[in-house]
Amino acid sequence: MSLALDTAAQDLLFREAQTANTFTDEPVTDEQVQAIYDLVKFGPTAFNQTPLRITLVRSQEARERLVNHAMGANGPKTLSAPLTAILSVDLDFHEKLPQLFPHAPGIKDAFFSEAARREVAGTQNATLQAGYFIVGVRAAGLAAGPMTGFDFAGIDKEFFGDGKQKAFLVINIGKPGADAFFPRSPRLAFDEAVATV
Amino acid sequence: MSLALDTAAQDLLFREAQTANTFTDEPVTDEQVQAIYDLVKFGPTAFNQTPLRITLVRSQEARERLVNHAMGANGPKTLSAPLTAILSVDLDFHEKLPQLFPHAPGIKDAFFSEAARREVAGTQNATLQAGYFIVGVRAAGLAAGPMTGFDFAGIDKEFFGDGKQKAFLVINIGKPGADAFFPRSPRLAFDEAVATV
Repeated sequence: MSLALDTAAQDLLFREAQTANTFTDEPVTDEQVQAIYDLVKFGPTAFNQTPLRITLVRSQEARERLVNHAMGANGPKTLSAPLTAILSVDLDFHEKLPQLFPHAPGIKDAFFSEAARREVAGTQNATLQAGYFIVGVRAAGLAAGPMTGFDFAGIDKEFFGDGKQKAFLVINIGKPGADAFFPRSPRLAFDEAVATV
Repeated sequence: MSLALDTAAQDLLFREAQTANTFTDEPVTDEQVQAIYDLVKFGPTAFNQTPLRITLVRSQEARERLVNHAMGANGPKTLSAPLTAILSVDLDFHEKLPQLFPHAPGIKDAFFSEAARREVAGTQNATLQAGYFIVGVRAAGLAAGPMTGFDFAGIDKEFFGDGKQKAFLVINIGKPGADAFFPRSPRLAFDEAVATV
């Protein structure tokens, strides 16, 4: 059974792409990040809420502030990447719903007046967008190194002092360097992951 | 700035793809779902935990049990789709870590002995995988209609009575039908979603 997506694209995005653990020095430009964003911004979210925010950590000072919150090998790995992005949820994403969902602006108050509900919906939808973003990094011919081994509460205090964003993933981005990849780990067989009722 | 991914693939996956609200009668086969799974199973998750489980709702009886938990228009929309998938988190995903992360089987007990921690990590990583799955549905030349307007606790009781899976998204899958798409809603400009520090 073949997919509509061509084989080279399948390989680029999924089959040959892997999480990179080392990177070359080649810079990742703002233009590349813009091209990634302009592609993956179209990925679907509930009510088009698009709550994902991306913070590009470029200055040496900001990189050092970030790795202070890294666990284990994630610190040196992050310092060696040409670009690192903090992915966060905008906990006030509802303020943009009149712009993002203009045919039903009442959604903002009807569904999202409660902060707790925004946090649940925002986290889910920003995480979906993180999946699209990782695919987009690969679409740019770059490797992604997503990491959850950080003190995210610490990152929030350090970078989002106003309490309006909640970080949930840090991603190193660049061209893979020497010995960048671990051997591919096994995946679940179809029948282990998919059931029919 | 061009991406490494060819333009036709960009269009298929993001630029021209949209959430479908109606579908033709053309069936979605198990072979198509297997091709999607065999592509997107390679998407990265923390410690390769791959906690996403997919339940294909095929029988008329199961479809009716599902739409009993739908809100508003999601019920009739779901009944009109050739295939609907329930996406859930396996709350006991750690049991498979010795198989999935064989070079460090101690991760299972070191990180995931607590159910609460498994639920947080599992939900995040299954949601990333849901992002990959939506991309995969489009890679198969099909349209996805992801929905969060369901009583998920009700779905859990109905379909996952043992308490070991937690549903979080329902996705209609098929070829788009008449008037399948709403006009594309605006997206945030690059500078609204991306900051540099």
